[in-house]
Amino acid sequence: MYDVPVRWSDMDAYGHVNNARFLTLYEEARVAMFFVGARAHGLGSFEEGIVIARHEIDYLRPVDFGDPVRVEMWISALKTASFTVDYELYDDGVLASKARSVCVPYNLAEGHPRRLSAEEKDFLTPYWIRS
Amino acid sequence: MYDVPVRWSDMDAYGHVNNARFLTLYEEARVAMFFVGARAHGLGSFEEGIVIARHEIDYLRPVDFGDPVRVEMWISALKTASFTVDYELYDDGVLASKARSVCVPYNLAEGHPRRLSAEEKDFLTPYWIRS
Amino acid sequence: MYDVPVRWSDMDAYGHVNNARFLTLYEEARVAMFFVGARAHGLGSFEEGIVIARHEIDYLRPVDFGDPVRVEMWISALKTASFTVDYELYDDGVLASKARSVCVPYNLAEGHPRRLSAEEKDFLTPYWIRS
Amino acid sequence: MYDVPVRWSDMDAYGHVNNARFLTLYEEARVAMFFVGARAHGLGSFEEGIVIARHEIDYLRPVDFGDPVRVEMWISALKTASFTVDYELYDDGVLASKARSVCVPYNLAEGHPRRLSAEEKDFLTPYWIRS
Repeated sequence: MYDVPVRWSDMDAYGHVNNARFLTLYEEARVAMFFVGARAHGLGSFEEGIVIARHEIDYLRPVDFGDPVRVEMWISALKTASFTVDYELYDDGVLASKARSVCVPYNLAEGHPRRLSAEEKDFLTPYWIRS
Repeated sequence: MYDVPVRWSDMDAYGHVNNARFLTLYEEARVAMFFVGARAHGLGSFEEGIVIARHEIDYLRPVDFGDPVRVEMWISALKTASFTVDYELYDDGVLASKARSVCVPYNLAEGHPRRLSAEEKDFLTPYWIRS
Repeated sequence: MYDVPVRWSDMDAYGHVNNARFLTLYEEARVAMFFVGARAHGLGSFEEGIVIARHEIDYLRPVDFGDPVRVEMWISALKTASFTVDYELYDDGVLASKARSVCVPYNLAEGHPRRLSAEEKDFLTPYWIRS
Repeated sequence: MYDVPVRWSDMDAYGHVNNARFLTLYEEARVAMFFVGARAHGLGSFEEGIVIARHEIDYLRPVDFGDPVRVEMWISALKTASFTVDYELYDDGVLASKARSVCVPYNLAEGHPRRLSAEEKDFLTPYWIRS
């Protein structure tokens, strides 16, 4: 569960948070979990490269500038060379958006996808909710 | 078919166009079609409000700063109160990403979705590819 | 004094917060003071329109993704139809950037600058440091 | 002289191009000149690191989404270890903003400013207008 502050400049000419910017809000939550959170567990490998293979986002209600939004996040699929993050974004306690990201660990230096390591699986497993 | 320039600042710390920013590139193509293009046909109603209900994006290859990307776009579903836009994004002639947006015409002043008008359907129909 | 969170996507391809993005960090602090802060004093008129006439920004040190930056802010000039905001931005307690914004109250509906009201001057005066 | 396209998302909730985003428009013109332009002259060293030490921007008229803006650019100061870029931004032929950037060549790998090379001075000199 991550509180992600909304910036005034996230709003577009319609006066609501721009739909593309939701991916940035989700990114902030994901980075908090996989970069900052994993690093606190001695695991820096996610930071060296996670490639996004696919995003799905549903927009249920407009979000305005104001209090931070709350993002709930869990792992909905954990495979050999990818994992899927599911998100729910709450604004003032009301579900405003849902999303799903397929993430692929990537060897940036060598330029190819790679398998999840045992340590990475150990880090992710507690967040895994089998559907 | 729209050429969308990539900005240097679209790149993130990995040195590639940020995944969230792809939605902005797709938005530029969509705006060119539905705001600028439709306005040229005397149709200003899209500009007064299209709400995005859902996005799906597949990332096939990284895109870097350089020449504009080319976005192909068509209507894959045309319903009473929504339509779906499909996109393909080409970088140097190679398919780098695909996306799909469910768009809902919206009465911004009164705050509720509305049906597509006959004029809007007439504008969209030539772009409609029934799958 | 405002703590402004830095987003991962504020970094550019050089791996530091992009220089243009500093204006967004300063904007967040300014909005907190003039929109949210003034509104708490029953003063909504800033929110209806402040136009920026000029910015100056000095970059002293690179800022990276991590803890929020701290922005100190004060009024350095208070005139009939404009006021000047000075800022200092601290990263981990070290001065990383300074900036100055000339702000003009603006009647957005009628499209012209306007004088500061007595209530607006009363709100700004405690922050005014005559140099 | 560079034509820089304005994106729909450059507009903020006021319906005009956001003041912070002007720095991104100026950045696009600067990158076209110093990265793409200089590279065409066999000079890749700017791309390996130019640090911005200071920006000044004057906002003369609001800019809206629509045609590209035109940016005129020249060198107003050329020193041993820095140079200054002056810009004028025209919207529909009317001067809408002026800006100035102090640029410092930087050795990113070693983390310190460096002198302009003879080749860099040769590239910049034709753009230098002594005031």
